[in-house]
Amino acid sequence: MSILNFFGVQHPIIQAPMAGVQDSRMAIAVCDAGGLGSVPCAMLDAGQLQSEIQQVKAATSNPFNLNFFCHTTPEFDSGREQQWRQLLSPYFSQYNIKPESITDGRGRSPFTHSIADVIEPFRPAVVSFHFGLPERDLLNRVKAWGATVLSTATTVREALWLEANGADAIIAQGLEAGGHRGMFLSDDLSTQVGTFALLPQIVEVVEVPVVAAGGISHKGGVQAAFALGAAAVQIGTAFLLCDEAGTSQLHRNAIKSDDAVHSVITNVFSGRPARGIINRAIREIGPNNSAVPDFPFAAVAMTEIRNKAEAAGSSDFSPLWCGQNPAGCREVSARELIQGLI
Amino acid sequence: MSILNFFGVQHPIIQAPMAGVQDSRMAIAVCDAGGLGSVPCAMLDAGQLQSEIQQVKAATSNPFNLNFFCHTTPEFDSGREQQWRQLLSPYFSQYNIKPESITDGRGRSPFTHSIADVIEPFRPAVVSFHFGLPERDLLNRVKAWGATVLSTATTVREALWLEANGADAIIAQGLEAGGHRGMFLSDDLSTQVGTFALLPQIVEVVEVPVVAAGGISHKGGVQAAFALGAAAVQIGTAFLLCDEAGTSQLHRNAIKSDDAVHSVITNVFSGRPARGIINRAIREIGPNNSAVPDFPFAAVAMTEIRNKAEAAGSSDFSPLWCGQNPAGCREVSARELIQGLI
Repeated sequence: MSILNFFGVQHPIIQAPMAGVQDSRMAIAVCDAGGLGSVPCAMLDAGQLQSEIQQVKAATSNPFNLNFFCHTTPEFDSGREQQWRQLLSPYFSQYNIKPESITDGRGRSPFTHSIADVIEPFRPAVVSFHFGLPERDLLNRVKAWGATVLSTATTVREALWLEANGADAIIAQGLEAGGHRGMFLSDDLSTQVGTFALLPQIVEVVEVPVVAAGGISHKGGVQAAFALGAAAVQIGTAFLLCDEAGTSQLHRNAIKSDDAVHSVITNVFSGRPARGIINRAIREIGPNNSAVPDFPFAAVAMTEIRNKAEAAGSSDFSPLWCGQNPAGCREVSARELIQGLI
Repeated sequence: MSILNFFGVQHPIIQAPMAGVQDSRMAIAVCDAGGLGSVPCAMLDAGQLQSEIQQVKAATSNPFNLNFFCHTTPEFDSGREQQWRQLLSPYFSQYNIKPESITDGRGRSPFTHSIADVIEPFRPAVVSFHFGLPERDLLNRVKAWGATVLSTATTVREALWLEANGADAIIAQGLEAGGHRGMFLSDDLSTQVGTFALLPQIVEVVEVPVVAAGGISHKGGVQAAFALGAAAVQIGTAFLLCDEAGTSQLHRNAIKSDDAVHSVITNVFSGRPARGIINRAIREIGPNNSAVPDFPFAAVAMTEIRNKAEAAGSSDFSPLWCGQNPAGCREVSARELIQGLI
């Protein structure tokens, strides 16, 4: 079975869900252009989620993808949080932030039965997960709707785990990819492998279709991914400058600057490793600092600083997510970008 | 001009020069099979070098590649060496090594006019360099023989530098690659990029042919590299188990074991970053330790420990160079391996 029939789309291109920089507007544009548009849902509450899905449904009858995180939220550790705020205190001072005014938030919620309640009536064609898969009963519920379930593997071991635990297709995320690493069986960054090595090794050992992600920015990249055995590609970074992206002006400026050639995997923005362009926060606190609270707690205090800095016109504390190949970023419509990829 | 005419070979496949694990025997087999065989010359003295070239010349009339390092040997720092030996003292004790018996050696020598004197009579078709390019007068001398000069870039900046400074073709070395990183304009490992991102970005900005290296292990990988704009590929890891390789039994065992899926870039064996399978030396001293003496001095004391450990049947202190995609390693002849790649 071709992956096109599998997803019910015209082109084997998945627009990578990118929480914080895109919403249903991008997903709709990609679906309209014959790709698989994705709505990042990890930072939406029930009302926002319902509204986003309704907007996609109203705009297109093509299949789309809803993306969720499925991490286990750890116990909140107030001692660790205090240590973190101590580390951030120079920045609180700089931006006149009163740390006691920062509410303890969660930032990003994992997929739950309550969320499943919201999306069930819409019967999404594709549901993708980051950081593994949800508990079996929850996963079975999603699959019972007829949804195709995707999740991300960053190692051969994770790919085998996902296949054994019910994923219908696997996204092989090479370390070139921007944003959060999907890694979930190990937190050792030295296990992370380039797309050229990861993709064929996963294709070799699993039966399900494999989607290539990481470093793909142009038509040659799509062809290369197919030569390595991919059934489809997932592309994120290349969409960041598109008209329909919600990428901030500061983020856009960073992507268009020479700084974009140098990104690193960092834990300072959320507590989980993610690839972004190097800025002051990464230089001074990271790239990877063991004092950073567990995901998603780190993001709470960091977001306060980010908001103040951005209001002052600075991206010093913004997560400037970006992959290692920003050469394909173009200020065009998503449709035009997709046309250039096929 | 096709890269095949460029190198004068039948297949656009360069066997990566791998000092310590192969010599003229491998180069001859690859040349005979229609690829470009390489002789790693960085660890050979004048007599050995002459003998190696004579053996290749006697066995094949096909073009071959001579590979040299062109680092600047730093001043020997005896304080640093003492610190290093202090760090290694538990291992000296374990293997009954008297540190005072270790002679101050250099390990690997850069390319010089004396070496050029040795190879000039043979007029090698291809000469490749690692760690940049030699001084201009020395480079001009090599080019005056009609040799095609290759060197390795690990970033777009290095590729532009190599083109501007006389390289006839550029090897784009993605971070999947095993062995020494060719990096020479920066020692910041976070600048190192996967092949999928590096290759098309270099192809985009240089006029000279680009050779893809890093993560290529099978026919699909070769095709993928071409889709990304490569004019040829350079493959190392896949040859490590070939009949003609000098890979030690301990090294072969590591490559065939589950350990091979987890390699890291480490400086503990030579002082320069290189990718190898994780073993005791890397776990206990590295992967990257700022106390390690500059390349190539670190290798001297480390080699003493390695030799004793290997004699005792252990690869705990051996540089088990290996790329991130050992899936293509096969215990066959180099000819058979090449047949499977084309």
